[in-house]
Amino acid sequence: MNTIDFKPGDLVRIKVKSQSYEGLVMPRTQYEGPEHITIKLKNGYNIGLSLNRILESSVIKRGDEAKGSEATVIPSEGGQVHGDILLLSTGGTIASRVDYRTGAVKPAFSSKELAALIPELGSIASFSIRSLMSVLSENIRPSDWTMIAKAVQEAFLAGFRGVVIAHGTDTMHYTAAALSFALENPPGPVVLVGSQRSSDRPSSDAATNLIGAFKFASSSRSRGVFIAMHSGLSDDSIAIHLGVRVRKNHTSRRNAFHSVNRRPVAYIKGLTLNENTVIGGKGEFIVRPNFDDRAALVKFFPGMKGSYFKFLVDEGIKAIIIEGGGLGHVSEDLIQPITEGIKKGVFFGMTSQCIWGSVNLNVYETGRDLLSAGVVPLGDMLSEVALAKSMWVLGNGLNATGQMPLDLRGEVTGRRWLSVEQD
Amino acid sequence: MNTIDFKPGDLVRIKVKSQSYEGLVMPRTQYEGPEHITIKLKNGYNIGLSLNRILESSVIKRGDEAKGSEATVIPSEGGQVHGDILLLSTGGTIASRVDYRTGAVKPAFSSKELAALIPELGSIASFSIRSLMSVLSENIRPSDWTMIAKAVQEAFLAGFRGVVIAHGTDTMHYTAAALSFALENPPGPVVLVGSQRSSDRPSSDAATNLIGAFKFASSSRSRGVFIAMHSGLSDDSIAIHLGVRVRKNHTSRRNAFHSVNRRPVAYIKGLTLNENTVIGGKGEFIVRPNFDDRAALVKFFPGMKGSYFKFLVDEGIKAIIIEGGGLGHVSEDLIQPITEGIKKGVFFGMTSQCIWGSVNLNVYETGRDLLSAGVVPLGDMLSEVALAKSMWVLGNGLNATGQMPLDLRGEVTGRRWLSVEQD
Repeated sequence: MNTIDFKPGDLVRIKVKSQSYEGLVMPRTQYEGPEHITIKLKNGYNIGLSLNRILESSVIKRGDEAKGSEATVIPSEGGQVHGDILLLSTGGTIASRVDYRTGAVKPAFSSKELAALIPELGSIASFSIRSLMSVLSENIRPSDWTMIAKAVQEAFLAGFRGVVIAHGTDTMHYTAAALSFALENPPGPVVLVGSQRSSDRPSSDAATNLIGAFKFASSSRSRGVFIAMHSGLSDDSIAIHLGVRVRKNHTSRRNAFHSVNRRPVAYIKGLTLNENTVIGGKGEFIVRPNFDDRAALVKFFPGMKGSYFKFLVDEGIKAIIIEGGGLGHVSEDLIQPITEGIKKGVFFGMTSQCIWGSVNLNVYETGRDLLSAGVVPLGDMLSEVALAKSMWVLGNGLNATGQMPLDLRGEVTGRRWLSVEQD
Repeated sequence: MNTIDFKPGDLVRIKVKSQSYEGLVMPRTQYEGPEHITIKLKNGYNIGLSLNRILESSVIKRGDEAKGSEATVIPSEGGQVHGDILLLSTGGTIASRVDYRTGAVKPAFSSKELAALIPELGSIASFSIRSLMSVLSENIRPSDWTMIAKAVQEAFLAGFRGVVIAHGTDTMHYTAAALSFALENPPGPVVLVGSQRSSDRPSSDAATNLIGAFKFASSSRSRGVFIAMHSGLSDDSIAIHLGVRVRKNHTSRRNAFHSVNRRPVAYIKGLTLNENTVIGGKGEFIVRPNFDDRAALVKFFPGMKGSYFKFLVDEGIKAIIIEGGGLGHVSEDLIQPITEGIKKGVFFGMTSQCIWGSVNLNVYETGRDLLSAGVVPLGDMLSEVALAKSMWVLGNGLNATGQMPLDLRGEVTGRRWLSVEQD
């Protein structure tokens, strides 16, 4: 009964218990295992069915064959401007398109296809597309950050007003932080954008996120690196997050990205931009695109062994970002191996696994012992941002102990000398 | 000018710029570094002052000398019931008391002192106190979980209706998860409670959190392990979180603890308990208090080296919980060392660093490769809970691959075979 001989795009009829369903077979989405099939019903809903519960099935009409990729790549050639905005494609869900009739995955759009699919884009700004790489974001490496930073530099040198970067969402916040440090005072906005749901789904956020990114990149006076994603406030509201203050906090929701320890920089509702603040000054555009991946992010947990730190130091790791508990603590038996690493010249920076709030090593004994050992508290800097920053500091020959705690791009809140507590 | 010769408890007058302040010198709180001093003004507010901005200072009246500890320990002797509730003290901010007049830190309350300080407690339930240990929560180890679990078992055997555990907040959610597995079907509620601000501060949450914990432990019909902390909904509202679905998400706020991927079990406002659900069934009380700390929690990051996994396997680690990106991904070059670890009998479980939502390894190529290698997806289980569970599974000779993905205490949402997407 379960001889599954239908392909994505086929129109099928399936009987489960007393219910019968008719619809198009969809390619697998992120919500099913191989033991499931998804059918798009005539009313627009998708329904997931367990294969071993199917009592009867028949193919009403076979779908079209896959047609393959039609990606168009327009390299940004020196001095040759093809519009206001350059869309740099790096890969991920947003840069691919699942054709639900055929099941074909197209690796990238051409600007013509994109303008046809999302007519609003053309009305916002003229644009070109450069397909820089096609990488799932879990495979993005620090060397890719360098390549993206250089491509953004080229785009601004070529005269584009802003750059939109299509990126997988898993590590988009790491890349946003890395680019924030690599690109000091960019001439215009650099906006990373992803999508949590592919464009075959009625709930896809690809179009609205791209519209938000284009709107911000083409009309904001802010200079810096940002992430544009669904805000969750309403269905067509996009939040613009500062690239060093944002995190992916949900595996699948459209509003997965949240600004942490500060408000979003702006919102875009429909085609209207509401800016809370303008980011960036009049400084010179400086690009330091190098990253040294001899850094590690280590999350503390009860029962953790001190040998982990010894191993990392022996491996040649030069900077270790710890995600401590609460205000930035680790168990007392870890202080000795950390101290030995610091004596060997390794930088140890402290962040918190709480995500929100700031570390403070002055309160409890453990914190003061960590301070004495030379661990550097990183305030309210996100651990992921601290990791990218440490790789950038190492890659550009800067002094980690001096640079890491400083607020270079808005990544950490400076201490105020006088505060009245709101008790 | 900055010869700081005043001690906590002294009444002082301090001039800063054109302002002059008069008040009691407070012990350092978690909000100041050594370069600051905090004064409690007559209006009740605390004000933080930078030492190097002080223009003039004078001591109006010296404070009393420190009096030291007066902790009273009432061990729970076999069969001897001293009330409805046993308050087990393990240490942390809530179990200590900073006397702002003297600066003395008292390691624990006696039940008499506590009843005098928080009169509501006595009206809720009769209670005894047992000071089990005095440990900052960053130093709590899996062997301490065993000791606490056995103390809870003794309390129920001695006839107490419920157990309240005072605990430092940094790792309280790890301990709550560990106890949830160690104590199957406890006869009554086991409620962990901490405080984010010590009791010398008007904003301290120690009293309200304890009242909430006592109220729930003495009147709920739920059986299981919970955390009682400030909910943030209003100043006197306490949330009761399920012990396997809660996380410390802020370093310093009173409402730092949040239920993740489910609602809180109950709220207590004033002395009124509002339960959303009753947890637990009629099963036998089974205690499996052992934990094996040969498990590790590893957060994936861009640029991570595969040698890290090889090291852990060579060190004798038996279970590795990965915090992957997004739906549970790591970069492709890590799959080989993970595969080798699995071949050597090490359990690899996948969770997400997104915190909210569920992993799903069926969507993308990387996830499917991880599944093929034998990595076990842990659904919407929190990584911290997965770590504690893996130590419990190892410590009690259970099969990790079989037990880890199962929903034993409400820690993971089971898959539904049929789902209609709300597109």
